[in-house]
Amino acid sequence: MSLRENANKIMSAALCAAMPDTAVRAALEKADFSEGRLVLVAAGKAGWQMASAAWDQLGSRISGGVVVTKYGHSKGPIGNLDIYEAGHPVPDENSFRGTQAAIDAVQGLTEKDTVLFLLSGGGSALFEKPLIPAADLDRLTRELLACGADIVEMNTVRKRFSAVKGGRFAQLCQPAQVFTIVLSDVLGDRLDMIASGPAYPDASTTEEALRIVGKYNLTLTDQMRELLRRETPKELANVQTHITGSVRQLCVSAEAVCRELGYETVILTDCLCCTARDAGSLLGSMARYYAQQGRKIAFLAGGETVVHLTGHGMGGRNQELALAAAEGIAGLKACVFSLGSDGTDGPTDAAGGYVDGTVYETLKAQGIHISDVLQDNDAYHALQKCDGLIITGPTGTNVNDISVLLVGE
Amino acid sequence: MSLRENANKIMSAALCAAMPDTAVRAALEKADFSEGRLVLVAAGKAGWQMASAAWDQLGSRISGGVVVTKYGHSKGPIGNLDIYEAGHPVPDENSFRGTQAAIDAVQGLTEKDTVLFLLSGGGSALFEKPLIPAADLDRLTRELLACGADIVEMNTVRKRFSAVKGGRFAQLCQPAQVFTIVLSDVLGDRLDMIASGPAYPDASTTEEALRIVGKYNLTLTDQMRELLRRETPKELANVQTHITGSVRQLCVSAEAVCRELGYETVILTDCLCCTARDAGSLLGSMARYYAQQGRKIAFLAGGETVVHLTGHGMGGRNQELALAAAEGIAGLKACVFSLGSDGTDGPTDAAGGYVDGTVYETLKAQGIHISDVLQDNDAYHALQKCDGLIITGPTGTNVNDISVLLVGE
Repeated sequence: MSLRENANKIMSAALCAAMPDTAVRAALEKADFSEGRLVLVAAGKAGWQMASAAWDQLGSRISGGVVVTKYGHSKGPIGNLDIYEAGHPVPDENSFRGTQAAIDAVQGLTEKDTVLFLLSGGGSALFEKPLIPAADLDRLTRELLACGADIVEMNTVRKRFSAVKGGRFAQLCQPAQVFTIVLSDVLGDRLDMIASGPAYPDASTTEEALRIVGKYNLTLTDQMRELLRRETPKELANVQTHITGSVRQLCVSAEAVCRELGYETVILTDCLCCTARDAGSLLGSMARYYAQQGRKIAFLAGGETVVHLTGHGMGGRNQELALAAAEGIAGLKACVFSLGSDGTDGPTDAAGGYVDGTVYETLKAQGIHISDVLQDNDAYHALQKCDGLIITGPTGTNVNDISVLLVGE
Repeated sequence: MSLRENANKIMSAALCAAMPDTAVRAALEKADFSEGRLVLVAAGKAGWQMASAAWDQLGSRISGGVVVTKYGHSKGPIGNLDIYEAGHPVPDENSFRGTQAAIDAVQGLTEKDTVLFLLSGGGSALFEKPLIPAADLDRLTRELLACGADIVEMNTVRKRFSAVKGGRFAQLCQPAQVFTIVLSDVLGDRLDMIASGPAYPDASTTEEALRIVGKYNLTLTDQMRELLRRETPKELANVQTHITGSVRQLCVSAEAVCRELGYETVILTDCLCCTARDAGSLLGSMARYYAQQGRKIAFLAGGETVVHLTGHGMGGRNQELALAAAEGIAGLKACVFSLGSDGTDGPTDAAGGYVDGTVYETLKAQGIHISDVLQDNDAYHALQKCDGLIITGPTGTNVNDISVLLVGE
């Protein structure tokens, strides 16, 4: 098999394992819903896929429920479930309506009943019942995005103005049991952080929230100051949580295929967070070292790199990472590919990029210098010229990116 | 043993293996100088150390010779050798005098005689007989440094204005044999590039030199234009070359000690060339992944990272790399250290930096935020406050940097 064929096989297998369908199926094998009523609530960008997979498996056992997902992410009706499409990354009226419907659906249950709660990325915005006027919440969210707060900081503050976040949705489900399946998009899998943990004891404290408010000098109303002081639940006896389809699983699945293809394997990390350009450069220099030794080896990394905008071209972090590796692997039997598991990379129709040892010369022959392209953040057009775009379309999952270096074929 | 003790042991062993003495001794084991005269010529920052090691081993077999090294790098007389200290990185009159003495020393030899040529980093400036006025060469060197040309580009152009570079010194030694021992500081060990390859067939061409002149719009005199057209030797039958003490050897020696200490080991590369900050960030995220799995593992990388100056603090690429890893390894049983094998890192008295899982909190408690420190390029002062400076003093060798992540102790 050629390097490109190897790469395709690795990508397909990894994405398949991270698909909500596969992930939900695997998690449900551990469940026993033989008693009581079963209400389904799904929230997040993969909400429709997860709910659909659960319905396929449990069907008539489900007495009803609600799905809240992003606009354009519903692919049609699922049994008797109510499906809402709503705003992301800024919550809107439909987020609030869908969430209220979910709260209504879990009322009046007994302790023999179960809420099957399916959570995925985007849930922070999509699953929300604000305790403050929508305008205040909207302003706060925009302020947090603008001041460069990270996702952990954003969620620590926002969950305190919410009736469902920080474990409060699980409180609303009481006395019913909550069986949560989480498709993780938060690096390191902190369960109280994924979608702001509607059904998980909250590890963040009022004190931390106050510190963040001070750090970014956030604007708060009197009502918001009052709510900030209300602590979130620190224990939830009615909740069972199963993480699935995380970026770690993406790496482990990809690694298994690499081994089948005869590669030695090393997973570097599942929480890559450096710049895309330098991650690519590093993979390139690793390729040079191992190619010289005639080793057949694969290095894998999961996570989410960052891009520093220095130009006005078109691309995404995965495309930039791959292209940045092209010089390092020039002339070698090696390839680097990187893709977003959701099938989109930056504001492009590509999921990521693929480069091999021929790309550097191919582009040079067309008068394209990779350093200029990277400076202009224009990886998309360069990759297009060397058959290096990875196009998958929306995959229906969202568990961060995976980057792979293959040396030898 | 503690992590710091492990780190110290690894550093000592790696540096020891890369010491000119060890390296020269190892290379001389392959040599047979029983016939004819033996003339020693040493050039480079490690010239004195290499010559001294050779003298210890061969002593009276050496009929005479010349050492050209950097100011302050001679530690006294060696047998009957003539020792010159000279300018670096810009060559000066002493470079020219020492080089002329070396040329004189290798005249009148027969094909039974041998020139033992000991080459190390800095040789480009220290070993030089310009074919153009010193002022022209000086201006060209400053121009190349100022325009951001890389070391390969600088040498491709400069060697053409030299009577000794690009294989020309080996021509001057003919008909004698040349036994070259190279202590490498060029990533990837391209022998025609190390100190501009005075005794190695030159792979660079007149055409390439002309392209670089055009790229940077360099100022040339008529004489320089004329010389640029003279091709360098592409074959040298009288030369045998032994590379030793390269950065690869540094990594391999460090790896051996890691294994002795019970670590699994992975050498990432021997040609690391990304930014110091991102290399540190990446090592940090690797630490998190492996610490979570309870693995005891060491990752090693050799090479030379780059620093983007964004502030006015004090530091060096190795200190910046180590400090950039501190947040990633916060709270973990892990350490990251990085040092220049020559014992100097940037314009400081430190060789590099060391951080462990306590550094992030230690600095935070003193009101020091690592992201601010990195933004100000002030790693030195932050490391000073957490016992994180690695001070070795000048080591007498120069084979790039080594960076190590240890997870578990």
